Amino acid sequence: MTDSWANFGVDLHLDLTGPGLRVGLTDALRKAVRTGRLSPGTRLPSSRTLAADLGMARNTVADAYAELVAEGWLTARQGSGTQVARRAAPRAAKRAVTPRRPVRLGPVHNLNPGTPDLASFPRTEWLKAARKALSAAPHEAFGYGDPRGRIELRTVLAEYLARARGVYADPDRIVVCSGFVHGLMLMGKVLRSRRVREVAVESYGLDVHWDLLTDAGLHTPALPFDELGSQTGALGREGAVLMTPAHQFPIGVPLSPDRRAAAVDWARGSGGLILEDDYDGEFRYDRQPVGALQGLDPERVVYFGTASKSLAPGLRLAWMVVPQDAVGEVLDAKGPHDLSSSPDQLTLAEFIASGAYDRHIRANRLRYRRRRDQLVAALAERAPDVRVHGIAAGLHAVLELPPGTEQSVVQAAAWQGLALEGVSRYRHVDAPAGRDALVVGYGTPPDSAYAAALDALCRVLP
Amino acid sequence: MTDSWANFGVDLHLDLTGPGLRVGLTDALRKAVRTGRLSPGTRLPSSRTLAADLGMARNTVADAYAELVAEGWLTARQGSGTQVARRAAPRAAKRAVTPRRPVRLGPVHNLNPGTPDLASFPRTEWLKAARKALSAAPHEAFGYGDPRGRIELRTVLAEYLARARGVYADPDRIVVCSGFVHGLMLMGKVLRSRRVREVAVESYGLDVHWDLLTDAGLHTPALPFDELGSQTGALGREGAVLMTPAHQFPIGVPLSPDRRAAAVDWARGSGGLILEDDYDGEFRYDRQPVGALQGLDPERVVYFGTASKSLAPGLRLAWMVVPQDAVGEVLDAKGPHDLSSSPDQLTLAEFIASGAYDRHIRANRLRYRRRRDQLVAALAERAPDVRVHGIAAGLHAVLELPPGTEQSVVQAAAWQGLALEGVSRYRHVDAPAGRDALVVGYGTPPDSAYAAALDALCRVLP
Repeated sequence: MTDSWANFGVDLHLDLTGPGLRVGLTDALRKAVRTGRLSPGTRLPSSRTLAADLGMARNTVADAYAELVAEGWLTARQGSGTQVARRAAPRAAKRAVTPRRPVRLGPVHNLNPGTPDLASFPRTEWLKAARKALSAAPHEAFGYGDPRGRIELRTVLAEYLARARGVYADPDRIVVCSGFVHGLMLMGKVLRSRRVREVAVESYGLDVHWDLLTDAGLHTPALPFDELGSQTGALGREGAVLMTPAHQFPIGVPLSPDRRAAAVDWARGSGGLILEDDYDGEFRYDRQPVGALQGLDPERVVYFGTASKSLAPGLRLAWMVVPQDAVGEVLDAKGPHDLSSSPDQLTLAEFIASGAYDRHIRANRLRYRRRRDQLVAALAERAPDVRVHGIAAGLHAVLELPPGTEQSVVQAAAWQGLALEGVSRYRHVDAPAGRDALVVGYGTPPDSAYAAALDALCRVLP
Repeated sequence: MTDSWANFGVDLHLDLTGPGLRVGLTDALRKAVRTGRLSPGTRLPSSRTLAADLGMARNTVADAYAELVAEGWLTARQGSGTQVARRAAPRAAKRAVTPRRPVRLGPVHNLNPGTPDLASFPRTEWLKAARKALSAAPHEAFGYGDPRGRIELRTVLAEYLARARGVYADPDRIVVCSGFVHGLMLMGKVLRSRRVREVAVESYGLDVHWDLLTDAGLHTPALPFDELGSQTGALGREGAVLMTPAHQFPIGVPLSPDRRAAAVDWARGSGGLILEDDYDGEFRYDRQPVGALQGLDPERVVYFGTASKSLAPGLRLAWMVVPQDAVGEVLDAKGPHDLSSSPDQLTLAEFIASGAYDRHIRANRLRYRRRRDQLVAALAERAPDVRVHGIAAGLHAVLELPPGTEQSVVQAAAWQGLALEGVSRYRHVDAPAGRDALVVGYGTPPDSAYAAALDALCRVLP
């Protein structure tokens, strides 16, 4: 054993099978480049490092490098070391084929719902929280963690959710998950292993959510829907119901108080569970947000919250507040380890505890409220026949269109480079046909592009 | 609408149902504290902020706060604002109950395998990479990402895996996952939906891995095992085999060249898949690591790599290199979104591209090699009858014990506060009884605690 492996440098794996040392090395390197395993531009270790790693004389490696440079497989430049030549690999040729059609660059304007303004992600504040959290973290924070998630995050979430959303939370019944979709997959597994067959869903929602439940072996009948929200009085023998009580997605109404009560009564009477998707509960502009349904009965409601709308989907951080008797089952479904990064969990905990999360939400509440106001004002002026539905909340609004025009408006928008969705895309197959409408995500564009996006929208409206 | 929601401050959700404004507010606050929803120490918004949020006069809120301070529910201190009183909540009482048994603080020394030295996690370098990566990232990096993982990470991984591990990688066939366990769950789903019924496993390994496959509906018969590794010639009608070819876990032998070839021949002939768990392939101390089996046939081997041993398990970052025809199935199993944090993926990409990853691995290679040398030297001096098995590699060694002593050594270690595991814990139920041995994880303790841990080990050895 030598100390060679400790030399600073890069690792290079080679299969040395040739006859002589130098010939074997040259062949192995040439083969690795020729077959494309080492791609163009890959930096090779210095001859000194590779020689030490392979237990060879440095000259042997230097000679092999020189030979391959002469053959054009490698390039050597003072200062930047030895690299795989840019033109060496067969893959490079493949990339050079001219595409027949111009590359599609995506829409010019994007008013699809579901994404917050990504340009507003507080990078500096987040990095500051990361530095503080990682510097203070105990060593064990970098190990395999508690499958429920880091206790630091669950503790501040319990306090935050109780304070801001009226959730009866306790760190022991919070389970951190990698986005709402991950949490829903977990609950799908739990319900299936409880032998539940049906999960009622709303007449409007996201098909990816319904599909996840279907994949778990569950049927997803839709509840009847009207202007007061989902008709929870119609709940029957389903084992659970998936809802967005604070702000129906995408229609935009809050569930009426009677129906909130009816949902909880149903759950208590039947032993069913309410899956409460509180995706944008923090964003209400006209009054205090409706509190979480979970506060009415924490043993019958699974509350789902997320950083995807309040901060950014790319963090993949969400949280479930689970009835005490279901925590074990959710953890069984999750697997032996936490799946969320502990540095990110610690950073979010610090971000919330420092007050930066509340500040960010309040700043974005103002940002989105202004955008909604601008949307309403633009429509009043330029498309007075289009009515805005739903409460002043969240990151999207529903625009009611004259009958029979939804398809053509969406089509016209696409032609003009404006990504826009009609409400029919969100309608459950069980639901009766409804009014023609658009679902406009005013949170999606950066501030600088919003006025132009609104203008593009007004141009395609009837 | 007022500008109130934009005021900087914290959010507080209240259910206002009482008769008068002030009485209603006082009741709602008192109830929130009494029921424990607002936990002791929770900071309340300033009276100005809450008044604006609720559309009340500031004096109304200030009066309600003052009343609750007088009643002892809240405390108000100059500078730190209004908080829920520490003694107010009923939950505080629950916490005060004296536990009957002293809290178990964990072992004094830990030589369990499976975890790298968490104290060596390069916090400063990692934060530096995070700052660089997050500052340079495009806005879309914070959105819902490619389910395969960030292209920046897959690109540098393809280059790194080809260079350092001999993997035939391509960014398009790499799928980022949240740790090896997550990747194995995904492959379990893929195999089950391909109607595979059996996945052969090794005679020694981790029961959590076998259990995950069992949970996916797969049987896991064990391959016969000897000093050359798993007898891949015995592979038959199984649909796949899960292996650790570079460094069998935990026995520590590399799979012999003949048996590597036999495994690939079997996969080609039967259409089966090899699941290659390359958990610690970077760490070999006596010669160049054995290259990945995947290089022999990228269409028949699913390669799994991870940052859990090379950096830290808490990152929950691992990667699969998947045969081209299985990429779609793996993504279907993964769900509609990536589950791994994009800031972390971007940070790891920068960490690898900057050379910090190679440097960290080389530094830890030296660290672990020295620890292994110290272990071998200590045993030679203080327990000459104990033989060290396996190649000089990885983060653990197998120590063969006199027959019939394994249980009593593990027991004696536990009594002395030394966490230590016997090899029988890793033996598959199909495998014949083997020799008595310990699996010593020398990577686990921090540098400062290693000598003491070794000393504790030597004291319990026969």
